[in-house]
Amino acid sequence: MTNKISKYKKTDKSDVEYFKGIVGDNYVITGGDELEPYTHDETEDFVFTPEIVLRPGSTGQISEIMKYSNDNNIAVTPRGGGTGLSGGALCVTGGVCLATNRMNRIMEIDTDNLTATVQPGVIVEELHNAVEEKELMYPPDPASRGSCTIGGNLAECAGGPRALKYGVTRDYVLGLTAVLPDGRIIRTGGKLLKNSTGYNLTQLLIGSEGTLAVITEIIVKLIPLPGCHRTLLVPFPSVEAAARGLNAIFLKKIIPCAAEFMEQSAIQAAEEMLGRSFPYSDSAAMLLIEIDGNHRDHLDLECEIICEAVLEMGALDVLLAESSARQKELWDMRRSIGEAVKNISAYKEEDTVVPRAQLPELMNALKVISKTHGFTTICYGHAGDGNIHANIIRGDMDEHTWREQLPDTIAEVHRAVVGLGGMISGEHGIGYTQKKYMPIAIGETEIELMRAIKEVFDPKGILNPDKILP
Amino acid sequence: MTNKISKYKKTDKSDVEYFKGIVGDNYVITGGDELEPYTHDETEDFVFTPEIVLRPGSTGQISEIMKYSNDNNIAVTPRGGGTGLSGGALCVTGGVCLATNRMNRIMEIDTDNLTATVQPGVIVEELHNAVEEKELMYPPDPASRGSCTIGGNLAECAGGPRALKYGVTRDYVLGLTAVLPDGRIIRTGGKLLKNSTGYNLTQLLIGSEGTLAVITEIIVKLIPLPGCHRTLLVPFPSVEAAARGLNAIFLKKIIPCAAEFMEQSAIQAAEEMLGRSFPYSDSAAMLLIEIDGNHRDHLDLECEIICEAVLEMGALDVLLAESSARQKELWDMRRSIGEAVKNISAYKEEDTVVPRAQLPELMNALKVISKTHGFTTICYGHAGDGNIHANIIRGDMDEHTWREQLPDTIAEVHRAVVGLGGMISGEHGIGYTQKKYMPIAIGETEIELMRAIKEVFDPKGILNPDKILP
Repeated sequence: MTNKISKYKKTDKSDVEYFKGIVGDNYVITGGDELEPYTHDETEDFVFTPEIVLRPGSTGQISEIMKYSNDNNIAVTPRGGGTGLSGGALCVTGGVCLATNRMNRIMEIDTDNLTATVQPGVIVEELHNAVEEKELMYPPDPASRGSCTIGGNLAECAGGPRALKYGVTRDYVLGLTAVLPDGRIIRTGGKLLKNSTGYNLTQLLIGSEGTLAVITEIIVKLIPLPGCHRTLLVPFPSVEAAARGLNAIFLKKIIPCAAEFMEQSAIQAAEEMLGRSFPYSDSAAMLLIEIDGNHRDHLDLECEIICEAVLEMGALDVLLAESSARQKELWDMRRSIGEAVKNISAYKEEDTVVPRAQLPELMNALKVISKTHGFTTICYGHAGDGNIHANIIRGDMDEHTWREQLPDTIAEVHRAVVGLGGMISGEHGIGYTQKKYMPIAIGETEIELMRAIKEVFDPKGILNPDKILP
Repeated sequence: MTNKISKYKKTDKSDVEYFKGIVGDNYVITGGDELEPYTHDETEDFVFTPEIVLRPGSTGQISEIMKYSNDNNIAVTPRGGGTGLSGGALCVTGGVCLATNRMNRIMEIDTDNLTATVQPGVIVEELHNAVEEKELMYPPDPASRGSCTIGGNLAECAGGPRALKYGVTRDYVLGLTAVLPDGRIIRTGGKLLKNSTGYNLTQLLIGSEGTLAVITEIIVKLIPLPGCHRTLLVPFPSVEAAARGLNAIFLKKIIPCAAEFMEQSAIQAAEEMLGRSFPYSDSAAMLLIEIDGNHRDHLDLECEIICEAVLEMGALDVLLAESSARQKELWDMRRSIGEAVKNISAYKEEDTVVPRAQLPELMNALKVISKTHGFTTICYGHAGDGNIHANIIRGDMDEHTWREQLPDTIAEVHRAVVGLGGMISGEHGIGYTQKKYMPIAIGETEIELMRAIKEVFDPKGILNPDKILP
């Protein structure tokens, strides 16, 4: 690590002055309480303190910051809402934290072309609300949508429950403005639903976790907002039955807008935290299924079809949320699990993704691996996408054993996932915490290509160093 | 051009022998009638004769071919169905034509994960038929679907009418096997609906027109096949009214699975070729609208909503195809336009794409430009995507003037498109014919990045040379 830090110039007073000249005195933070929020994200307990936090207000300012940093070999780590779960926004080599939170303007909602043009610091839920007022929808809905930014969502290619029917962030991005590490500004795509004009730089930047360029303006696709929803809670006697039940729904030609999976221990963790009980919380697995559309009658018909299909596959019951209050209650339960798991003990969350039908095998593998190493696991997530958040729970294991056992356990989990045709991150990204596991999932040649692409964009390696690539 | 050709080794007898050793004597073509189909694609009247056509049967054979070619500096041009419209498969420097037409196996249709795994030489319509038998759908449907291959579709990121509701080729590709120019085999993605594990090489290869790697195996996403359709033909008194009518449909929360645009001259060309007349063929513009779903009642309701919306925006009438025979008739008319235009005279087709709402402005610009240069234009295409195929018609202009006037005209068209926020190819790709116009649409820095990415994958420049980059 010491070696790597020494690659970069440590910033000094003259750098601070220069940056103040670009963004203004009020938008440079170099210490004190103000700095603290920028020292971590939501990734377990990592803390790295940036030397300087800059809060630019425009693409032009970011361009100037990057040019100066590149010329002077200063490491720059872009940061959105700081809600990342793989440490992508951690300033692991110190340097500059480039916070986009001031660039939080929804620049345009174009109801003729069904697009929105936004700055990267826009909170995703604020975009949801703004477009919903116009009866439009921006589908990606990560759990952190109340505090994460759309720029961060692009960086990690965030998903969320609605990805099942509507796709992930990359499916909604039509065009970008971005600043290269040397300060040059590029533009890709446009308000265009089709585009075969050269290599797709838009798609290359999405999911690149802020390591190739700083995204400063985003054109997203919007769709008409569905007018009604139905929410169903379906308990199953086994994970296998839940997986079969889910597939039966697809084969009936219904794609739910969400199909969330919770295993027993996850539901019980939520019950404990919320201090209330949910029906069938002793069942092995539950699916929280939501369908949407524009016609009530049509949705009611689909509910009946789903009922029949899942009961045939062994569901214990089907509970329909009769009111929007009850719908909210079920979703609150689902959404509380992440927090509930944190409350139990130290933990490590793995963002596993496998082919949907391999979910039961993944669950079995996780149980075997964790038992071998003396852990328990709590699993929940997006069953429809095969994207399960596997939480390895420390419980009452002593700190030393936990630290010793964990890396091997995680590696074993990842090997099992890859053995099932999966990947080690579905929607959280590789960032800082997962990069050492990349060779388990990605071949040597592929990693070599990725490294060469990084070199193309960032020859001096100053942008978000020490991320993704092992 | 001569300079460029000399960059590569001209193949000789020993090369032919070596290649025969890889693919077998029967799958090497070096002359005669068998060679002719490989000398052109569907791009106007270009003819380039490859020195050798190779028809490998596996990823391993392609790997060996590439390794040898890279070591010996032999240019290799991959080829799918030869239906390309920008010359992407033309062997412009001679060398080896790498035909994938033997690798035409649908390897798996996975009804548990709703995926298909296919070789690149599979004809797209055969994939449609195979998955439809299982009540599933692979949405991309370019006009050439009866003869184009899925490998070629990936290369160009093909679209088609259904892209409006379902998206283009890139939205359905989950994983790839591909061979790098030096013969190394890479794998990306998997049967995974979400994946944030490193840079997205899958999306980088899609739309790269066979210039970065040879795609040899493809995992695509399938969706449930909608059970019913409704087809509507809607004449309008003006292009503006058609654009307004289309937007009104979206604002009623209906996304048609197709919204095809035909201007008067396009309909009349189809009438002439088919020797029959269509209602309202003297109207300025027509939309062919299709909606799909699983419930007849629901579709009937949507038809009513569409009717009301378009009539309010000035539609002259709404004609509902009452039978599937009549549906087919309307689609035959739409699909015959391409051929009908060819029959009129020499022509040049431009694959313009603009923000959907800018369609009327694009049409106006096209009329002004073509009039200035003494041409007529016939326009049709995918109104819902803003993707209009603008055909510049030679008519009775003499050959010399045609050749002289055309490049400037095309450049002006492209400048107008870009001025409206558009791009110079929506779904045909840049290939050979459009590359000189790239600087109109793509900035210097962006082109530099693309060139550097090409270098990363293909440092010797042997794979599909002289394409995309100016």
